[in-house]
Amino acid sequence: MLKGVAASPGIAMGKVFLYTKKFAEINTRNIDASMVEDEIAKFENAIKLTKEQIEKIKEKTEREFGKDKAQIFEAHLMLANDPELFDAVVNMIKNELITADNAVNQVIEQHASMMESLDDKYLKERAVDLRDVGSRIINNLLGIVNVNLSELDEDVIIIAKDLTPSDTATMKKDKVLGFATDVGGRTSHTAIMARSLEIPAVVGTGNVTQNVAGGEIAIVDGSEGIVIINPSDDILKEYEDKLNKYKIRIEKLKELKDLPAVTTDGKQSMLVANIGTPKDVEGALKNGAEGIGLFRTEFLYMNRNDFPSEEEQFEAYKYVAEKMNGKPVTIRTLDIGGDKKLPYLNMPDEMNPFLGYRAIRLCLDEKEMFKTQLRALLRASAYGNILIMYPMISSVVEVRKANAILNEVKEELDTKGIKYDKNIKVGIMVEIPSAAVTADILAKEVDFFSIGTNDLCQYTLAVDRMNERIKDYYKPFNPAILRLIKNVIDASHKEGIFTAMCGEMAGDPLTTVILLGLGLDEFSMSASSIPNIKNIIRNVSYEKAKEFTEMVLNMSTPDEIEDASRKILYDIIGE
Amino acid sequence: MLKGVAASPGIAMGKVFLYTKKFAEINTRNIDASMVEDEIAKFENAIKLTKEQIEKIKEKTEREFGKDKAQIFEAHLMLANDPELFDAVVNMIKNELITADNAVNQVIEQHASMMESLDDKYLKERAVDLRDVGSRIINNLLGIVNVNLSELDEDVIIIAKDLTPSDTATMKKDKVLGFATDVGGRTSHTAIMARSLEIPAVVGTGNVTQNVAGGEIAIVDGSEGIVIINPSDDILKEYEDKLNKYKIRIEKLKELKDLPAVTTDGKQSMLVANIGTPKDVEGALKNGAEGIGLFRTEFLYMNRNDFPSEEEQFEAYKYVAEKMNGKPVTIRTLDIGGDKKLPYLNMPDEMNPFLGYRAIRLCLDEKEMFKTQLRALLRASAYGNILIMYPMISSVVEVRKANAILNEVKEELDTKGIKYDKNIKVGIMVEIPSAAVTADILAKEVDFFSIGTNDLCQYTLAVDRMNERIKDYYKPFNPAILRLIKNVIDASHKEGIFTAMCGEMAGDPLTTVILLGLGLDEFSMSASSIPNIKNIIRNVSYEKAKEFTEMVLNMSTPDEIEDASRKILYDIIGE
Repeated sequence: MLKGVAASPGIAMGKVFLYTKKFAEINTRNIDASMVEDEIAKFENAIKLTKEQIEKIKEKTEREFGKDKAQIFEAHLMLANDPELFDAVVNMIKNELITADNAVNQVIEQHASMMESLDDKYLKERAVDLRDVGSRIINNLLGIVNVNLSELDEDVIIIAKDLTPSDTATMKKDKVLGFATDVGGRTSHTAIMARSLEIPAVVGTGNVTQNVAGGEIAIVDGSEGIVIINPSDDILKEYEDKLNKYKIRIEKLKELKDLPAVTTDGKQSMLVANIGTPKDVEGALKNGAEGIGLFRTEFLYMNRNDFPSEEEQFEAYKYVAEKMNGKPVTIRTLDIGGDKKLPYLNMPDEMNPFLGYRAIRLCLDEKEMFKTQLRALLRASAYGNILIMYPMISSVVEVRKANAILNEVKEELDTKGIKYDKNIKVGIMVEIPSAAVTADILAKEVDFFSIGTNDLCQYTLAVDRMNERIKDYYKPFNPAILRLIKNVIDASHKEGIFTAMCGEMAGDPLTTVILLGLGLDEFSMSASSIPNIKNIIRNVSYEKAKEFTEMVLNMSTPDEIEDASRKILYDIIGE
Repeated sequence: MLKGVAASPGIAMGKVFLYTKKFAEINTRNIDASMVEDEIAKFENAIKLTKEQIEKIKEKTEREFGKDKAQIFEAHLMLANDPELFDAVVNMIKNELITADNAVNQVIEQHASMMESLDDKYLKERAVDLRDVGSRIINNLLGIVNVNLSELDEDVIIIAKDLTPSDTATMKKDKVLGFATDVGGRTSHTAIMARSLEIPAVVGTGNVTQNVAGGEIAIVDGSEGIVIINPSDDILKEYEDKLNKYKIRIEKLKELKDLPAVTTDGKQSMLVANIGTPKDVEGALKNGAEGIGLFRTEFLYMNRNDFPSEEEQFEAYKYVAEKMNGKPVTIRTLDIGGDKKLPYLNMPDEMNPFLGYRAIRLCLDEKEMFKTQLRALLRASAYGNILIMYPMISSVVEVRKANAILNEVKEELDTKGIKYDKNIKVGIMVEIPSAAVTADILAKEVDFFSIGTNDLCQYTLAVDRMNERIKDYYKPFNPAILRLIKNVIDASHKEGIFTAMCGEMAGDPLTTVILLGLGLDEFSMSASSIPNIKNIIRNVSYEKAKEFTEMVLNMSTPDEIEDASRKILYDIIGE
């Protein structure tokens, strides 16, 4: 039994497919000057082959996952086409009289480690891509053909050191029961892919690949972060039961799909989905989302070399609005900055990026960029039920400034006779403590609130939640957080507007009863969490939720509140 | 007329003393192998001379400014004594056959630029010290004697590129009317020294040294950040009037020294001082402080290679307690971390240090270090009126943990029969939004609050106040800040405890009326601000302050509140 990171929930049982890649052995011998032209020709050929392969993967990914997920291979293609890298390799072959594979290896390594050494998350990710492309070129040079995950012919659990974007893109998904890898964390590519595919996965086990040869029976418990190789009959039986229960539960939850999220005494809430790309709409609808509570627009701006055009944005927003067919789609304006940087925008390093120049602060300065997005949003609003949401509002001043720009854009559209939803609702993220504290002032000038609990907790508790050393101080159950949420909801209702929540808290079963009791109108979460939360809401009364909430609001410590929440959840759904 | 950074308030008029240093010309010629021993002997001699000079400066600084301010020269001595640097120079002379001055220059430059290249504020400061010591050694090698600021024989305005710790330490202070420098910002050594000496200063002018030859008449307006060389008669007259008014005002304010900070209708507030070192007590008393509202203890831990001993801390705390002679002295436990690092504590780099592992979070982990400080504090409490204050409290959980450790220490002292104040008051900094929001819960478990407005604003508004790009979002007048302050004060009074404030807001004349109206009990600030704030309090009624505060609490934007505050301040004191 191995412990790892619980990366994607669920249980998988089946035969192990050990996915090892042959590692190229680089030819380090020197070549004769007469062979230089030959090596360069081999290199050119390998580049050509590489580009064809990437092009194919890109098309497959676009078909299966959508245009946005395929963008990474667009970036790979750009790297394979990079004239600077090409020249560097050719020059090295010529000047140092070495083989093409050796030259590619050295050039890629130099560039990648340079990128990694800089303290920039964006460049670090690019280094991974560069190595992925580099090893593809080297394999093509050396004629190495790796096992192809596109040719799986039976149901398997894939066990690997790690999976690259190329691996998961080419993989035959319907044959994959689960993943287990040696490396990676909750936000690694493998983990994200597994959750997106809803395949159980455990990552970061350390050495799972060294414990299998392929063909063994394995259990991957992605909820607990456990991998068991060659389980005993007892354990096998235990997990079969678990798996059956899990399946029954999932089936039962599926039955809720078209039922409302209504309490036993008739109070109805909206359950909507957070999405990161247009393609995610499918999962939202499949899980019974009654709308999109947070459509992040960063995907349009990232992994590219220039701003997205108005047309490109318009198409993306329109697509989602139409697919949702009249259901509300709340689209957040660009929330870039902090740890998310754009290579084509001048964004200096900051000592405390989370307390820095980001989101609306940046958009109000980059007026043309902001206007382009607002124009695309307004135009798309003619095709569905779009709501606009501004992030990182600290006072009513930013709301007024952003609305002034929005009005400029509306006037421009009016002049040109371009149609848009004249009654479009405009709201704000409540994620900065000052906004939560002054919700009464803000409620007078916006159409809705959406509480971003991740950032709200970070700022209210002065804890960077990415910082492992202080994770014990990141307590969403701190009474201050609950009071601020209550203040926001109460203030909104007093002005007759609604409050949504799109932070992780909204999809956490432990907080559902409290949020219900506080009167939250809309819960927005990962689509796959919706059935679970709906099940809780349908099994409790609003009266009981209010009573419980009143009780916990009188508690002093986060732990008391968490314990009480755990207990009431057990009372309601027996888990 | 030149614009610069207003580094230290007040107006200085007088003759320019242009302080330029001769820059050593390094001998880059190669030496004969037979001269190696000679060069090494010269180097050893220069080191000896350098150590004697630093020793003298250190003693003078200790006499005039106190032990803590002299610590920097302790660090200089350690550098001059560093065997690694010594060996590196000797080896370079031997192996490369170069002169001692050339070798020193290269070794120091290598080390200093390496230190600067690392993203570590502490090491960057050490690089400045290293260069200071290096140029002293080189000057001693080359027999360069610079103008000595200890021999000034008339009142002058010192104009220089920049001033080093060595310069200000040797300077004859009573002859210096003001400073103006080419480089530096508000937190540069020159600026800090000027404020500490209460000498008007403008730094960062760019090129003031190039506009004077020495002997000119100059005006340094440290309040406005202006330097005027050879002013016309009109301007001279204007500034003479200003200076007179300023002096009269200062004299009038001095008369308030022993009067209470009481409103016209009899409501009295405590005005106390923030201090960073024991020596600062003098300034506090001189300005009529009724106590110390914040004694920062970081000075004991910084610029050294190991933890301070209990004895050393005890002496520092006892000194201040005795000097304050029964007046309250609130001592904050170690607030390290964030941008303040200790070389002898393992403190990893963090992505968002202000939202990181610091202050009480670190102390609760470093239990022995924390216990040593608490023991020193308790022991010192037998010699005066000491209060203990914990920084960075986000919930009652940390208070309980810290108090449990404090109780352990008390029991140990009891067992040993060591005396301390059994009724010592223990309070907390309210600087994290969650603490302000849950002040009612916290008020039940502590003896007092002290609001740290600098951090409270940073977190509540999600703005790093060091970040130039977003300075417009750092708004202490944001209604949320005022409401949180009100909440803290009201909660404390409900439990019968007092609320102090030790952030910059407490010493800002613009906020005095509001804080008075909110019922703040104690204002803690730089000692030199006390007379000014006292003057405001003594010229307004509590009734009027309450009325005004109620009015601004109904305003929506920071700017409205700031404008109203400016107006009422003018009504009260005509400025």
